Amino acid sequence: MFAPAYLDYNATTPLEPAVLDAMLPYLREQFGNASSRHEYGRAARRAIDEARQQVAVATGAHPTEVVFTSCGSEANNLFIKGAAANLKAGLVAVSAIEHPCVREPAKALKRQQWTMREIGVDAAGRVDSADYVAVLAQAPKLISVMLANNETGVMQDIPALVEAARSTRAWFHSDAVQALGKVPVDFRALGVNALTVSSHKIGGPKGAAALIVDKRVEIAPLISGGGHERGLRSGTENVAAIVGFGAACELAVQRLDREPQRLRALRDELIEGLAAQGARIFGADAPQRLPNTVYFSIPGIDGETLVGKLDRVGFAVASGAACSSANPEPSHVLLAMSVDGDVARGAVRISLGAATTQQQIKDFLVALDGMVVQLKGLTALAS
Amino acid sequence: MFAPAYLDYNATTPLEPAVLDAMLPYLREQFGNASSRHEYGRAARRAIDEARQQVAVATGAHPTEVVFTSCGSEANNLFIKGAAANLKAGLVAVSAIEHPCVREPAKALKRQQWTMREIGVDAAGRVDSADYVAVLAQAPKLISVMLANNETGVMQDIPALVEAARSTRAWFHSDAVQALGKVPVDFRALGVNALTVSSHKIGGPKGAAALIVDKRVEIAPLISGGGHERGLRSGTENVAAIVGFGAACELAVQRLDREPQRLRALRDELIEGLAAQGARIFGADAPQRLPNTVYFSIPGIDGETLVGKLDRVGFAVASGAACSSANPEPSHVLLAMSVDGDVARGAVRISLGAATTQQQIKDFLVALDGMVVQLKGLTALAS
Repeated sequence: MFAPAYLDYNATTPLEPAVLDAMLPYLREQFGNASSRHEYGRAARRAIDEARQQVAVATGAHPTEVVFTSCGSEANNLFIKGAAANLKAGLVAVSAIEHPCVREPAKALKRQQWTMREIGVDAAGRVDSADYVAVLAQAPKLISVMLANNETGVMQDIPALVEAARSTRAWFHSDAVQALGKVPVDFRALGVNALTVSSHKIGGPKGAAALIVDKRVEIAPLISGGGHERGLRSGTENVAAIVGFGAACELAVQRLDREPQRLRALRDELIEGLAAQGARIFGADAPQRLPNTVYFSIPGIDGETLVGKLDRVGFAVASGAACSSANPEPSHVLLAMSVDGDVARGAVRISLGAATTQQQIKDFLVALDGMVVQLKGLTALAS
Repeated sequence: MFAPAYLDYNATTPLEPAVLDAMLPYLREQFGNASSRHEYGRAARRAIDEARQQVAVATGAHPTEVVFTSCGSEANNLFIKGAAANLKAGLVAVSAIEHPCVREPAKALKRQQWTMREIGVDAAGRVDSADYVAVLAQAPKLISVMLANNETGVMQDIPALVEAARSTRAWFHSDAVQALGKVPVDFRALGVNALTVSSHKIGGPKGAAALIVDKRVEIAPLISGGGHERGLRSGTENVAAIVGFGAACELAVQRLDREPQRLRALRDELIEGLAAQGARIFGADAPQRLPNTVYFSIPGIDGETLVGKLDRVGFAVASGAACSSANPEPSHVLLAMSVDGDVARGAVRISLGAATTQQQIKDFLVALDGMVVQLKGLTALAS
């Protein structure tokens, strides 16, 4: 049998031991509320300030542009709803492959007389130029296009999209949750007005994320109250999680010079093995993809079934974005890429990370091969 | 000199070691995303389900009424803004002594054509009956009155307020963040439609809280996306924090039969000592107060100054609600109780908890006495 292998890093990552070590003092003796004016409070405040600096360094932002939130979904909602609240109703344009936590708040703006328009993508999963031009002609006030897609790993050319949109004067946001730690992410170089990053996708704890936001964008808070985070996000700070996020950012930056190559090599080995089994790789034609993500389908094999069988022998992989896994509809990302519904139902996502080894990839391919042979046999018998 | 003593449990509490132990597996090997359909995900989901049960037991609610959020401020905002989003604009009434994370979202509703009205309190810090009757006559659609005040510890007679409001058909919410773990809290007995509770005030970690909510109340999410928490709160769950919240709830319930008496005895000793130093105790005339909270002022002595001096010798106490400590305005709670501004500026809050000992109280009184003598001497010299 095989040793269990977690191959679902785009859903969440194991907490790095060094990150947990950084957090533990704040789960023990340094338990203060960062708003308290005594030494317990000041120690918590210093820790948050340091983490803010670490997040800023990892994203090429200024610390004062970092607004801590509890998760990436909150940061995305904060931008979409918070920026819209200070604008007259208009058009919000988001790519058709955004995570639900961008698409849903954009849809929710319809209740406030906004129009919501999706920007189509091509077969490779990249924003369709013609459709983007058409959207820009409608003068959107808010645009959100993710830096890297959670399912396919396909990256968008954000600087070019920002440049093309400049004349509209729209606020441009990018969800970089899947990109951070896997490729360099630089707020200034991207040219966006706002960027979302999240801790638990980069070896940090769940419970911390950030909206990096240009101060020219007036944002109304989702959560108002004590005025924390420059009034943009009230609520007692989750000090330990924020400290962990900062430590994970520092670690991720250190690893950027070698880890992406290592993952890319493993991924290419995986793709080669999958191709030999007749798999179709989604987004393979995109000029840039995350080095850790492989999204594939094997003709005639149901993705959910495969994920279930793999799980039973210890391989943890995904059949779609984890956050919408409760819903067995074919992936909206693949449908937007004009993938046929039946093929999309076969989709399985493998996402590699810090603890992934070559042996795991080899074992995975052997296990998969056996399952595919067996499932194809069953299909043949049934037909 | 004195051993350091943390006497600011209403701001936040040390994480109980047993709670940290319960959390650690979810910060180590059980790192799954609860939405993932493999074993890592299922283990996380089971842990959240168990915590939901523990929170429900501690609050007398049904597990399906528990909506996890990242903090009490988020839960309060979720109720106020989320319930208002599904109602026609009308009157929202909140007591004049609510925490900013209730007052501010209520004020924010003015942008959506709502009217916001504060309900006055009497000198003891209790909702003023005449003013409450006047508010009810204006047919509020939403009412929020906290169960126990964070500064004074004064408790409101929520069942009576709910009963009086019944004919208005308003949705009634109560912020029970400071009450949970200190007095019994029962969602059904209170009769409210929604209740806020928070983990870090009861020996649990920061990063988890809950809105307990009657399913008849239609709530629009603040954070939309993957549809977590019955669609009321999207975002990857902070599994470890939620597990810790559940464990802290279980511990708090177990301790309710003895700990409040122990704290009340310490508090009474503290009050006696303070009275001997000429202190005025705020809310002393209220029929019911939390057993752990003492809010006082010593004539002629500035609260901030005293808190700073106490901090330097190791006593951590508060001069006002921690969340608004950045703002040295006199407490809005005391002003609502018609306390003179100068007296209010002297306010110091001591809040006791699990690790508080009789020796700490004795030491505190000795330290305070020395400081008061010294500060009064300075005042005498200056005049």
